[in-house]
Amino acid sequence: MAGTEFEIIQRYFTRKQPGRVDVIAGIGDDAALLRVPAGMDLVACIDTLVAGVHFPQQTSAAAIGHKALAVNLSDLAAMGAEPAWATLSLTLPDNAPSWLEDFAQGFFSLAERHRVQLVGGDTTRGPLVVTVQAHGFVPAGRALRRQGAQPGDRIYVTGTLGDAGLALQLQETAASVLRSRLDFPEPRVDAGLLLPGLASAAIDISDGLLADLGHLLEADDLGAVIEVDAVPRSDAFLASAGPGEAGKPSRFYELPLSAGDDYELCFTVPEQHCAAVEHRLATLPCGCRAIGVVEARPGIRCQRADGEDYLPAGSGYQHFAEDGHG
Amino acid sequence: MAGTEFEIIQRYFTRKQPGRVDVIAGIGDDAALLRVPAGMDLVACIDTLVAGVHFPQQTSAAAIGHKALAVNLSDLAAMGAEPAWATLSLTLPDNAPSWLEDFAQGFFSLAERHRVQLVGGDTTRGPLVVTVQAHGFVPAGRALRRQGAQPGDRIYVTGTLGDAGLALQLQETAASVLRSRLDFPEPRVDAGLLLPGLASAAIDISDGLLADLGHLLEADDLGAVIEVDAVPRSDAFLASAGPGEAGKPSRFYELPLSAGDDYELCFTVPEQHCAAVEHRLATLPCGCRAIGVVEARPGIRCQRADGEDYLPAGSGYQHFAEDGHG
Repeated sequence: MAGTEFEIIQRYFTRKQPGRVDVIAGIGDDAALLRVPAGMDLVACIDTLVAGVHFPQQTSAAAIGHKALAVNLSDLAAMGAEPAWATLSLTLPDNAPSWLEDFAQGFFSLAERHRVQLVGGDTTRGPLVVTVQAHGFVPAGRALRRQGAQPGDRIYVTGTLGDAGLALQLQETAASVLRSRLDFPEPRVDAGLLLPGLASAAIDISDGLLADLGHLLEADDLGAVIEVDAVPRSDAFLASAGPGEAGKPSRFYELPLSAGDDYELCFTVPEQHCAAVEHRLATLPCGCRAIGVVEARPGIRCQRADGEDYLPAGSGYQHFAEDGHG
Repeated sequence: MAGTEFEIIQRYFTRKQPGRVDVIAGIGDDAALLRVPAGMDLVACIDTLVAGVHFPQQTSAAAIGHKALAVNLSDLAAMGAEPAWATLSLTLPDNAPSWLEDFAQGFFSLAERHRVQLVGGDTTRGPLVVTVQAHGFVPAGRALRRQGAQPGDRIYVTGTLGDAGLALQLQETAASVLRSRLDFPEPRVDAGLLLPGLASAAIDISDGLLADLGHLLEADDLGAVIEVDAVPRSDAFLASAGPGEAGKPSRFYELPLSAGDDYELCFTVPEQHCAAVEHRLATLPCGCRAIGVVEARPGIRCQRADGEDYLPAGSGYQHFAEDGHG
């Protein structure tokens, strides 16, 4: 062992940071002392990554540092919030300096891009478990919620779906495009910030499109029809997944519908705001695509381009389910 | 396995709660939506408990639930903050219903007493690790800090010290008074709320008096003299620890100075406010006692009632130190 808890915090986690004016005191006291700007609501979320459950055991430390923050920023994005602060709890079997260096690099490089300041943390010894809590701001009363969709609203997703799931299935190595989607998901913070006032409801896709869209719809007892061929797939996905086959579950259909870990946003938009949303999000690298429509009847119906129904085999990741994958 | 992640959250963690007006949306969306009252600063802290490191493996689920929240409320107390919200990340090897029931009972029973609302969480599968983040409010600019002590300020502690350490050493069973101090520490929230405007600096004692007082003093490059016989010890401690012996490390001296897990507050008070502090804290069950004085010269000197110096053997718990205990 090379250092005490205090030295670890000192060495790896008190590096040059954004120095936000809303942080009165960050790391170094019993608690962080923070000031939410006037007129803003506070948005807070917490997510935990466990080695071997949320990422393969051989995942790089940089990827773990990135992903632990990214999954939380993705939750903030789904609320339309601007990220501000994070706290980090790191449980480690040992404190190998090179691992910590890489972890901090992955964490802070994403934090800097979103002006997120690390304001507190805890390092403990034990099996590798990483918990991050993120905080953000949204103008009072303007947060996006899971609730709020109406029948007739169009359903959109950002980016592409299925990449992370395919990387896992193919056991892609760190260098591949698909694997980088699994290891370094890009939280759609910029997209989320453009949606309040236009979208009626939103959620991020961590457990799979059908599962997460299902949560959104259940909040209002609604259903949807999804055009499964319209779900956006990346070039890398199309090159590796193989084509869809009529009447059979295939990667081409299953992964974009049911695999988790993509961290795209799924949101609903009333007809009169669809053009504005498409115009705004076209300015972002991720863009967005309409993939279906909200219906009054509960349940999600999947439909192929040829008009046939598609019956999905899986429906998202459940940590405690009998046959959970991941 | 008996339930999915969503069912666990539903069943055990969405029970009747305080229903605070500053919680716009709690559990059930991508993130919690919260409103800090006008004129208040936000205080936030995060702490993780690992089985076998922060509590003995056979600790009851109720105690773990209590303690995971208590250690965070203790940090809020050390800032003089009023607790408001908590988030919980629970990593579990399985989801035994009776364990979860007891854990939730321990957690919520403490939460209710302090009007803390659970506003978010994450349950994951893996080795038993519990992370809680707590949030509280303090009038803007009035938080207690580690910084701020002055030479001549008196040093106080609440309650009694050494009980939790003695329970560990003696391997006390769950029924004993000492063991209940280890398993169910009482965060000194009420004491913390009385201190802003009177105390010059504060910290909570989680790693041992000398270690934590050391952090407080280091923040201003100061030192202290501690009257080791004045450090408050409980009746249960005195009955089990045995007397101090001249020239030898003994439980009577070592545990109150160096053992962790007591979660009392240690704070410094300028001479002109000492009477007011003693008067106010006398109304609380924990009370407080003056145990020393801040000095300009760095370092902590321990002095016995007979005027002799006492040289402590240990100096607090360090998670990553070679010979850390706990």
